[in-house]
Amino acid sequence: MIKVGIVGGTGYTGSELLRLLVRHDQVEVTAVTSRSVAGTEIAEFHPGLRGEIELAFSTPETARLTDCDLVFFATPNGTAMQEAVALLDAGVRVIDLAADFRLRDLDVWQHWYGMTHAAPALVEEAVYGLPEVNREAIAKARLVANPGCYPTAVTLGFLPLLEAGAIDATRLIADVKSGVSGAGRKPSTALLMAECGESFKAYSVGGHRHQPEIRENLLRAVGVPVGLTFVPHLVPMVRGIEASLYATLERSELDLQSLFETRYRDEPFVDVLPAGSVLETRSVRGTNLCRLAVLEPRGAGVVVVQSVIDNLVKGAAGQAVQNMNLMFGYDEAKGLALSAFVP
Amino acid sequence: MIKVGIVGGTGYTGSELLRLLVRHDQVEVTAVTSRSVAGTEIAEFHPGLRGEIELAFSTPETARLTDCDLVFFATPNGTAMQEAVALLDAGVRVIDLAADFRLRDLDVWQHWYGMTHAAPALVEEAVYGLPEVNREAIAKARLVANPGCYPTAVTLGFLPLLEAGAIDATRLIADVKSGVSGAGRKPSTALLMAECGESFKAYSVGGHRHQPEIRENLLRAVGVPVGLTFVPHLVPMVRGIEASLYATLERSELDLQSLFETRYRDEPFVDVLPAGSVLETRSVRGTNLCRLAVLEPRGAGVVVVQSVIDNLVKGAAGQAVQNMNLMFGYDEAKGLALSAFVP
Amino acid sequence: MIKVGIVGGTGYTGSELLRLLVRHDQVEVTAVTSRSVAGTEIAEFHPGLRGEIELAFSTPETARLTDCDLVFFATPNGTAMQEAVALLDAGVRVIDLAADFRLRDLDVWQHWYGMTHAAPALVEEAVYGLPEVNREAIAKARLVANPGCYPTAVTLGFLPLLEAGAIDATRLIADVKSGVSGAGRKPSTALLMAECGESFKAYSVGGHRHQPEIRENLLRAVGVPVGLTFVPHLVPMVRGIEASLYATLERSELDLQSLFETRYRDEPFVDVLPAGSVLETRSVRGTNLCRLAVLEPRGAGVVVVQSVIDNLVKGAAGQAVQNMNLMFGYDEAKGLALSAFVP
Amino acid sequence: MIKVGIVGGTGYTGSELLRLLVRHDQVEVTAVTSRSVAGTEIAEFHPGLRGEIELAFSTPETARLTDCDLVFFATPNGTAMQEAVALLDAGVRVIDLAADFRLRDLDVWQHWYGMTHAAPALVEEAVYGLPEVNREAIAKARLVANPGCYPTAVTLGFLPLLEAGAIDATRLIADVKSGVSGAGRKPSTALLMAECGESFKAYSVGGHRHQPEIRENLLRAVGVPVGLTFVPHLVPMVRGIEASLYATLERSELDLQSLFETRYRDEPFVDVLPAGSVLETRSVRGTNLCRLAVLEPRGAGVVVVQSVIDNLVKGAAGQAVQNMNLMFGYDEAKGLALSAFVP
Repeated sequence: MIKVGIVGGTGYTGSELLRLLVRHDQVEVTAVTSRSVAGTEIAEFHPGLRGEIELAFSTPETARLTDCDLVFFATPNGTAMQEAVALLDAGVRVIDLAADFRLRDLDVWQHWYGMTHAAPALVEEAVYGLPEVNREAIAKARLVANPGCYPTAVTLGFLPLLEAGAIDATRLIADVKSGVSGAGRKPSTALLMAECGESFKAYSVGGHRHQPEIRENLLRAVGVPVGLTFVPHLVPMVRGIEASLYATLERSELDLQSLFETRYRDEPFVDVLPAGSVLETRSVRGTNLCRLAVLEPRGAGVVVVQSVIDNLVKGAAGQAVQNMNLMFGYDEAKGLALSAFVP
Repeated sequence: MIKVGIVGGTGYTGSELLRLLVRHDQVEVTAVTSRSVAGTEIAEFHPGLRGEIELAFSTPETARLTDCDLVFFATPNGTAMQEAVALLDAGVRVIDLAADFRLRDLDVWQHWYGMTHAAPALVEEAVYGLPEVNREAIAKARLVANPGCYPTAVTLGFLPLLEAGAIDATRLIADVKSGVSGAGRKPSTALLMAECGESFKAYSVGGHRHQPEIRENLLRAVGVPVGLTFVPHLVPMVRGIEASLYATLERSELDLQSLFETRYRDEPFVDVLPAGSVLETRSVRGTNLCRLAVLEPRGAGVVVVQSVIDNLVKGAAGQAVQNMNLMFGYDEAKGLALSAFVP
Repeated sequence: MIKVGIVGGTGYTGSELLRLLVRHDQVEVTAVTSRSVAGTEIAEFHPGLRGEIELAFSTPETARLTDCDLVFFATPNGTAMQEAVALLDAGVRVIDLAADFRLRDLDVWQHWYGMTHAAPALVEEAVYGLPEVNREAIAKARLVANPGCYPTAVTLGFLPLLEAGAIDATRLIADVKSGVSGAGRKPSTALLMAECGESFKAYSVGGHRHQPEIRENLLRAVGVPVGLTFVPHLVPMVRGIEASLYATLERSELDLQSLFETRYRDEPFVDVLPAGSVLETRSVRGTNLCRLAVLEPRGAGVVVVQSVIDNLVKGAAGQAVQNMNLMFGYDEAKGLALSAFVP
Repeated sequence: MIKVGIVGGTGYTGSELLRLLVRHDQVEVTAVTSRSVAGTEIAEFHPGLRGEIELAFSTPETARLTDCDLVFFATPNGTAMQEAVALLDAGVRVIDLAADFRLRDLDVWQHWYGMTHAAPALVEEAVYGLPEVNREAIAKARLVANPGCYPTAVTLGFLPLLEAGAIDATRLIADVKSGVSGAGRKPSTALLMAECGESFKAYSVGGHRHQPEIRENLLRAVGVPVGLTFVPHLVPMVRGIEASLYATLERSELDLQSLFETRYRDEPFVDVLPAGSVLETRSVRGTNLCRLAVLEPRGAGVVVVQSVIDNLVKGAAGQAVQNMNLMFGYDEAKGLALSAFVP
């Protein structure tokens, strides 16, 4: 049984963490902070959690986070890098669901996130929390950088192909689509339902923060920089990410299906669909799964990978719980036995 | 003033044609056929048209279509090829909104549409109704094959690049997304809102009928076969198509923005957005426009074109009216002065 | 031909006014104001209007509104009451789409809108712009208070019954539902698609500003105060209002259907459906129509009226154009020949 | 540990039952029947259940249902009344999620369901499975009629008021709204997303099968027939029911809030919200809860009750599991510890 704190409990990753942790039999949530609604019962703020949790939001000052075994940061970018060091010094382990520790290259990070990094040493130490790549390092980490939602879906989709040297790594294309909860829970005009309902659009076509994160992941995997065109789109739905990945095949003798099945055979949260499958985001809604399908349409030399996740679960809170389980020696799937929410 | 008939008036392309034609001051709709609801008032079947039209559905037998100047087929594939010849023989001009006359290559057509073609001679004669390519031939045509929705969006997006020899034509990628009205109005389980709402999915990943249509269009434009990976997706919204097109740039000295602007300068229904724009489908909802944006993100050698249309207007009924205007010498935009329906 | 100005052109009622007015052949829009985006091209801010209008937003100071024949206020509540008097003094006629002049009872207004009224004399003068009730007064008015969206739908639904003394006016129930565009276009958390998509909720159950407006309308019609329970709900869609109205029948001999048909026989924008019809909001989407159906289910003594409008058209901008037509002697329906946007 | 069979496993109530039962630690699902897809793996048909269940659909003939302790019928109306008697004779207990045993009055049943009842004796024996009313009888029942979705929401909302004699029972109004999954999973034009997306409509205004079911429930509760106006609406979302209930208050001295809190104090699946709350359907999405709020707006003598449920859980499969738990002596909430799926 461990004591867990959450810094920033009013957003979607924070509430999703709560939804998962209240059912985890080895976790006691002892503090959830929020400056804006400190003092309010969590179940009053998140009516879906009425009856699930009896705890009020506290300020960071009164939360006694140093008594926790683990603290999650479900905060905007730039918060964890200010506050993590004190917790780590007090012996508390940390998982940051924001982007503060995701990129090794500080210059790239500072360019994309528009601020000076407050804890470069921790960037060095942080382990990138993608269990399918870093399982052992995560287990020993003090500080885990929980991956971004798009990077999770895209990295898992390209990985088997790149590791096998099967594709031209200089011309990767990721056409990705996300539900609107990926943009978070904060006042906004662009994300009003009257703006983004009944419409589909691209955004950040010229550049998106998750592009360098994916490039670092793939570099780690294959040792050389990749060329990646990354175009995100907004789908008029609440949850779900679909990534359609395209690359030129360079090894035509490969059995793509068995390549993927072999790579992920032992992974509890990666599911390779039978050849010829098409994927829908709802097949993973509410679960920690990444479902993948791979195909070379009409034998034309271009491989197409479909990858779907729930952006709030495998793309955020669920993966954070998976990392927590690894860090504390629990069954990796504990608290994550979730059926897809269909229809 | 011309007399116009519509064969098949209960589906979405039929009702959209009606919505446009009742406001066109040179058109009298004299017959709309439907076997299943013959005798029913059109305005009772389509309550949105109450007060707009006073006419009942008739059977094909009683519709006196040969008295028309023009007949639109808004029917399933395989109907127009049976019935067009009699109308043409009677001096009636025909626009088919289905796929019967879209492909020159009969073998390819028969493969994808799963039937033997009933009127090969008409395939020879038919003019492909994409005004941006075939304006003059359309004006003189007896029989026009109205383009598919995806082929309209994708062809207009790739055309300037291919005509200029700007891209590697052997590795084109089209990641396309459509609202659910593209699948038509017929009983279906897969298209129930409970099945396709709040979810996003790919379909027909291994092959889709619109892929060979696009390949023929591009072949016509550049004279050599192209390699095209085409992956359609279903978006939980009613109307709209977005195509994200990817290709490797081969002429780096080109100004892509002016290439597109020059190509479409005189086109009434193609609108090239300023450099750096992102496109949303609602910006063309209810209009006959194709809006385009072109970009080479981070100068990385891959060009990205976004193309959006309303699948029922520029992707079907609106383009059919545009073709009708050309065929009968009216202003090409008559009856198509439609503002985008936002929000 | 008249010169028209719009104060506040960035919201949904402002952009819908523009969408209608650019097609009105007796109107020249000479100024559209917005402090926040003054200087920006309207078509850049509202990409759906690209090619439709060549005009930039101006500040109220530079807009020369006193040169207009008519100025629409598409502003938040409390603006028109500050600025209308100067325009009226300069001989400009005014239509306020907000609530400043809708309630005769100043105390009630001040209670619900939480401010002191700045122009009580104008409240006295203003004509309530519901043509089905006030057509002649509107034609002569200098200042028109354009009705609220819910009040339009509910008033038109109850009116025939109350005028005929057919129902118990002390126990009226209006269960109303609106799409999210009714809440306007401003940064908000509650109206994020991630908050209000895939969910249905009541709001303002204890009291809503439109309840006293409806009560004033009905009082005007029948001469005695009515008892009205009014419960609004938010529907996960962009446009449309449906009002289900319930009352106890007191005159059982009445033919409800002919009562409604007679009352609205000459109304260009009220359409009474045949007995037994059910109504869907999309049947009026994009139109200035109010469609009504009336029924006494199983003869049980309770009359049920369904009333649907497009909240941005008959519920706001369309009704404002209808009022403008009346004020300037144009055909009441000019510029409002709009087909329902289905599907 | 009990053996459970499901007759009819391809629809939404069948798949939701599976979603719940695979996590119930006292249940082994031994057979799921479907004539149309017999032989297909359940997890292939319902991809969201991949990895959750290893069982193929069987025909009713091969399913050996008589070896089960309990069989659920998740079939169209009219199936269970044919097949239940043989199972009961073999000692198997039965829960019917369709309507075959919901109405005591056979004439009324035959009128609304349009068929002759095949097992009148079983109608007599069946227990109506609303635990908040019939808990003890359910525990002992061989045959349980699982309530309809609307009747569950409406009955629980009116019950405290009627039991206390607080309202005029001759003029009850229930304005109810449901997501589209309530209409089931079968080919349909009316329920296509292109038909019911972005629109809101009433349906069955003249009469709906759930009206007599609610009237029987309320009669059972108060001993006299009630007058009920019941108008259902279709909401463009997948799951969820909201019922807005209206009645004239007859006992003004009552504290409505404590009346409701007292009535449901010990109920595990009814949650009365604090006074003044507004309810959204997502607050119960994926849970077995009925959440209620009660109010007398502005003290005007009309009481308004809001009631929300998930139509597939408390409105169908979840309530069936609750009944199963009662019948077999398990903790009533076993397998139903479900957090609301928000956002």
